[in-house]
Amino acid sequence: MSSEPELRRDPICGRSVLVAPARAARPVVLAGHAPRHRTNGERHPCPFCPGQEHQTPDELFALREPGTAPNGPGWLLRVVPNMYPAVRATSGGAHGSAEVLIDCPEHHDSPTDLPTDRLADVFRAYRERLLALALDSRLEHVAVFKNVGAEAGASLGHTHSQLIATTVVPELMRAELTGAGAHFAATGRCAFCDLIARELESGERVIARTERFVVVAAYAPRFAYELWVLPVAHAPRYEALSDSEAHELAGLVKRVLVALDVSRECPAYNWFVHTTPLRAGAPPHYHWHLEVLPRTSRPAGLEWGFGCHITTARPETVAAELRAALPSE
Amino acid sequence: MSSEPELRRDPICGRSVLVAPARAARPVVLAGHAPRHRTNGERHPCPFCPGQEHQTPDELFALREPGTAPNGPGWLLRVVPNMYPAVRATSGGAHGSAEVLIDCPEHHDSPTDLPTDRLADVFRAYRERLLALALDSRLEHVAVFKNVGAEAGASLGHTHSQLIATTVVPELMRAELTGAGAHFAATGRCAFCDLIARELESGERVIARTERFVVVAAYAPRFAYELWVLPVAHAPRYEALSDSEAHELAGLVKRVLVALDVSRECPAYNWFVHTTPLRAGAPPHYHWHLEVLPRTSRPAGLEWGFGCHITTARPETVAAELRAALPSE
Repeated sequence: MSSEPELRRDPICGRSVLVAPARAARPVVLAGHAPRHRTNGERHPCPFCPGQEHQTPDELFALREPGTAPNGPGWLLRVVPNMYPAVRATSGGAHGSAEVLIDCPEHHDSPTDLPTDRLADVFRAYRERLLALALDSRLEHVAVFKNVGAEAGASLGHTHSQLIATTVVPELMRAELTGAGAHFAATGRCAFCDLIARELESGERVIARTERFVVVAAYAPRFAYELWVLPVAHAPRYEALSDSEAHELAGLVKRVLVALDVSRECPAYNWFVHTTPLRAGAPPHYHWHLEVLPRTSRPAGLEWGFGCHITTARPETVAAELRAALPSE
Repeated sequence: MSSEPELRRDPICGRSVLVAPARAARPVVLAGHAPRHRTNGERHPCPFCPGQEHQTPDELFALREPGTAPNGPGWLLRVVPNMYPAVRATSGGAHGSAEVLIDCPEHHDSPTDLPTDRLADVFRAYRERLLALALDSRLEHVAVFKNVGAEAGASLGHTHSQLIATTVVPELMRAELTGAGAHFAATGRCAFCDLIARELESGERVIARTERFVVVAAYAPRFAYELWVLPVAHAPRYEALSDSEAHELAGLVKRVLVALDVSRECPAYNWFVHTTPLRAGAPPHYHWHLEVLPRTSRPAGLEWGFGCHITTARPETVAAELRAALPSE
């Protein structure tokens, strides 16, 4: 295991990453050089807690106790328009839709606080909203993501997700689609299926798997501890997720995130779903997956100025560490 | 002036940015949601201060008082190999060179603490190191950048710059070269020259200018208060900067950064030089410039997962604010 810097390229989009473990030893004098561990703030007033439904617009979707009325208590999960949208239905320049999915009525600050059944509801709700948003034929793409912790850009602590639907396919999705398309053109195979086969064979970056899903430490991570969760069999569209798969996915994601919290003392992170754009059918070359991007370092001039990431932890070391920290099933 | 979200594309590389001023009003409950203002840490022990030369490798370049010996005190500016390199001369996977340029012997934590003459020395030293590194024919590109403040990834407070030379042209440089090349193919003109002409004509994003340089608020900023400093006349290569231009550039950059510090209470930031790669001659379509990227927000899932940035400040508003905050010349 070398400590020499190593240039790695993401196998899908080709992004360059320098893995430089020796840099972990550099002296740090500036206070606050590293991201803080997750901070979750004030409990009140929380606009996402039950009884505060008047603080959000009317709900678009909810899982509710039988007999409860919309926009009041009695919900288990609730989707509302984002009151401070990045895109707007009426906006010419940035048409789209911005929604907030409140994961649970409890003021939990981590999705891992949810029982597996309830986290499965979150993954099912992603599917339902993707299907609903696809009905607006102007929309081309829905970005589904979650910000956990202030350092990862969250402004509220109550665990929630976001959906941002746009008329354009975002840049990083286009890069993955292009890379995966080139691989398919050259080999006749899905780049993600090939990646999964390689990872399962070597095992060195595999953190956990179930029958239908696998979690690996990303080969060329932008941040140390970047994780990818993939369906093992080819699956272009997230919307095809069955209820049973949602449950299996929830159990797996929860175990791995608990291991991450134990290993790294609760880093802030984002997770996001990469799935085939709304109008692109079910292509043989694209394979949906969930990426988890913890805030383990602060990108600097090389990253922001040149697009080249440096990470100090080898993904193979990270995978071994997280495997050891996994809670029992 | 609308508060509706607006989708803007960077005129060179095409990157998408959503400008959504109304999002500035969203409630923020999480402590530490916004980046902290610049924190600069402990004064001692500082490996970049005079008398501590034994803590760094032998110098590659220095401006020295007459009669002083290398690797001891008496320097005004000093370049040393990075002891914790992201790339290394001996490394097959990541061949290259990583250097640290210590801007000054004083333990200043901001480049604006330097008199203009001394900041001009920094810009001259960038040129000298670019010319020296170009002699290694394996190298294709030198990333020249500066991290100011912990939130921008700096680990030491003593003001310094970095040069990272690589055998590949980094991703964001390739994106700019591609975009600028396409513009030239379509119009026969340099995209940056066209941008400067548009900006000078409208004036709404111009913050300051001198005879030979102009500073504009970026049209499609990734972070609010992103600034671009450009030579007004076509200039493909930073290495062609004259001493007189270095002085003019230093005075202009210093005034604008002082205005930024006043307006935003000393945000952390990176600056970086984008210039034609080492082996690419002096093309008619590329135009060197300096970008200043302040850490005014924390990118979240939409940025990291999809490559789409959201900013809440209109560049036109930013430019007016910074113009008003400029110190007198």
